[in-house]
Amino acid sequence: MGCRLLSVLFAAHLLLLACSDEGGSGAAGPRAPAPSPTKEGAPNVLVAYHSRTGNTKKLAAAVAEGVGRVPGVTVAVRRVSEITREDLDGADGLVLGSPTYYGNIPGKMKTVIDDWSWKMKVDFTNKVGGAFATGGEKTGGEEHVILSLLLFMMNNRMILVGPLHETQTTQFGAMGAAAVTGRHDPGLSGDELEDARKLGERVASITKRLLS
Amino acid sequence: MGCRLLSVLFAAHLLLLACSDEGGSGAAGPRAPAPSPTKEGAPNVLVAYHSRTGNTKKLAAAVAEGVGRVPGVTVAVRRVSEITREDLDGADGLVLGSPTYYGNIPGKMKTVIDDWSWKMKVDFTNKVGGAFATGGEKTGGEEHVILSLLLFMMNNRMILVGPLHETQTTQFGAMGAAAVTGRHDPGLSGDELEDARKLGERVASITKRLLS
Amino acid sequence: MGCRLLSVLFAAHLLLLACSDEGGSGAAGPRAPAPSPTKEGAPNVLVAYHSRTGNTKKLAAAVAEGVGRVPGVTVAVRRVSEITREDLDGADGLVLGSPTYYGNIPGKMKTVIDDWSWKMKVDFTNKVGGAFATGGEKTGGEEHVILSLLLFMMNNRMILVGPLHETQTTQFGAMGAAAVTGRHDPGLSGDELEDARKLGERVASITKRLLS
Amino acid sequence: MGCRLLSVLFAAHLLLLACSDEGGSGAAGPRAPAPSPTKEGAPNVLVAYHSRTGNTKKLAAAVAEGVGRVPGVTVAVRRVSEITREDLDGADGLVLGSPTYYGNIPGKMKTVIDDWSWKMKVDFTNKVGGAFATGGEKTGGEEHVILSLLLFMMNNRMILVGPLHETQTTQFGAMGAAAVTGRHDPGLSGDELEDARKLGERVASITKRLLS
Repeated sequence: MGCRLLSVLFAAHLLLLACSDEGGSGAAGPRAPAPSPTKEGAPNVLVAYHSRTGNTKKLAAAVAEGVGRVPGVTVAVRRVSEITREDLDGADGLVLGSPTYYGNIPGKMKTVIDDWSWKMKVDFTNKVGGAFATGGEKTGGEEHVILSLLLFMMNNRMILVGPLHETQTTQFGAMGAAAVTGRHDPGLSGDELEDARKLGERVASITKRLLS
Repeated sequence: MGCRLLSVLFAAHLLLLACSDEGGSGAAGPRAPAPSPTKEGAPNVLVAYHSRTGNTKKLAAAVAEGVGRVPGVTVAVRRVSEITREDLDGADGLVLGSPTYYGNIPGKMKTVIDDWSWKMKVDFTNKVGGAFATGGEKTGGEEHVILSLLLFMMNNRMILVGPLHETQTTQFGAMGAAAVTGRHDPGLSGDELEDARKLGERVASITKRLLS
Repeated sequence: MGCRLLSVLFAAHLLLLACSDEGGSGAAGPRAPAPSPTKEGAPNVLVAYHSRTGNTKKLAAAVAEGVGRVPGVTVAVRRVSEITREDLDGADGLVLGSPTYYGNIPGKMKTVIDDWSWKMKVDFTNKVGGAFATGGEKTGGEEHVILSLLLFMMNNRMILVGPLHETQTTQFGAMGAAAVTGRHDPGLSGDELEDARKLGERVASITKRLLS
Repeated sequence: MGCRLLSVLFAAHLLLLACSDEGGSGAAGPRAPAPSPTKEGAPNVLVAYHSRTGNTKKLAAAVAEGVGRVPGVTVAVRRVSEITREDLDGADGLVLGSPTYYGNIPGKMKTVIDDWSWKMKVDFTNKVGGAFATGGEKTGGEEHVILSLLLFMMNNRMILVGPLHETQTTQFGAMGAAAVTGRHDPGLSGDELEDARKLGERVASITKRLLS
């Protein structure tokens, strides 16, 4: 596997970084400092969710498990209503999760996250993002919620990824992770939880790589 | 709370990792080699477009100009119908652009790009992507086309970014670049071209950073 | 208000109705009574909007003007925060309009409309819907907001239409009406207002037809 | 307030109307004749699909069964590649179904339907539409395909509906019908087929009502 080779390269890269003064990566102006390669501490992913019945909370926990699969990346899981400016400032990666209300993000969740850059003045530039959703029907809007969260993050200048999947014959990605939790398919299945883990794993992996 | 349980699980997981030799960075399996940090040559962005009347071609040229703003990144601009497997394999970043036909990607363009991973077997894992569109009306589907191209790239395991914008009072991002080229607003305006340059610049900047 | 004039037309319309025997509504079960063809009063369109700076309010007024182009259809324009259950129960058509916050419906607006069927228990089955949006950038999410509002209405069992457009050489529709009101294109243009009128006109026309 | 201005404009508009003989219901200009209420024969729904492996074909058959639940509405099921201008001209309702290729409508299907109004010159104004999709993953793009087909139809001036659902405690709608047919959930389940039937039933019901 290329992973061991990568970690050697990574160590070499750290040495190079220590001896260079390259600083800025160009994408961000003075008011948009990119997450600094010389930042102290491990890469950090925040899993932020809204949940009324508990399903989205469970999916958030699975995303966090996935983050834990990437060595050297730390994770925190929080309800959006409990997240502080410090939580957001300190996050290198951010995974947003939401139930589906009438095909869309619940107003209560959107009201909270609308304030993050507007009132809290958080700068999300170049943070790595991913999204997940729960909902009661296969065509109930889970994908639309994921896309809506991705657009929110893109509007906030983030970098977006989804989970990586593969079977014996092919490999592919997805826009995020979702669980159908309604009348035809109650609860969260093992496959849905594993999709969420893969989402966390990918966000963690790319977050780590961008900071290395 | 599940958080304490999670951190126990996480510690256990770390122990397991320490005792295994799986290493895994997660993002890339054996059939999904990430663009190698040791790859020869400069980071390379391919701007791939479909154009019937020439408007999307002009927007593609502006995207390429934006790539040129990032030192050390090279750029190529091609019609999707002329792109080879080698072009795609060699691209570290890919910006897709399309006109809007009935609110969506034209069938002729989608037919070409459907074959890229399916028949050409190109592996897009961890390539950096962005999207742009042209169309005749403000609500004619340009955004939907951009989202559709982003989803195409996400499904192909890519990493997505949009342009970064800022005014004197605020900064924000966008899902991509678009030009309205119809009855009310013919041709491409200076603002539309500059938005496209900023898209190219961001894709180039993040591509370079991921390869550094 | 034009309501008194309209009521004259409406009286004539009722006479016509009284002489017909058009019958069944078909689509809706016992808990989903379709707007009744024998309902008292003229077809009625409610234009419901959220507006902070006033742009969406202006676009709402243009939508209402468009409703006024269809003889026999009455119109009301209200902020979502002021709308009562009676307003919604009495509306045969509903046009929703919103600004764009971070690519999506503002949380404050969504929080209000989330309660309409959930807490107010309004039954939207077979009401006719359309949507409009304002935002600061061509790719800022206006289309995504329109789609999000359309999905909200579809989830609430409504029937969806957009404006009809035509030029000398072609005719086409759109998903709704939008105005770009930001740095590159401040204010609402005549074309944007006319698009909004056409949206109102179409919703009114189909609402009237479904009730006739 | 603009309301007073509006009522003046409205009165002027009424005068103009009174002096003209244009009559017009607004929705349809001379090149956009609405399906005529006096049209001979039964309301007619065309279910048009693209299918490679057969799953979308099966879902199309279920949609057609649902059309058959509405007395007096006839139905035809065709591959998009076999559909003639006459098929489309004669359809009062149209349900489009597609598999999901890389999160979107397959190029082969879109290429066919792009020609319907562009080259075949079919006028879709006021036909009633609905959409369905199949795909391999819960977040593989099925919803995005349904939305894309709905936008295609909206751009072609159609009227859109989705299926109506209800449980013992609530009722709701959806954007369309979908089946997940991949590794975790092969084949079409009874619930997925029933969702498709409900889509057909709703399109048929509204088609009939608009023509009555």
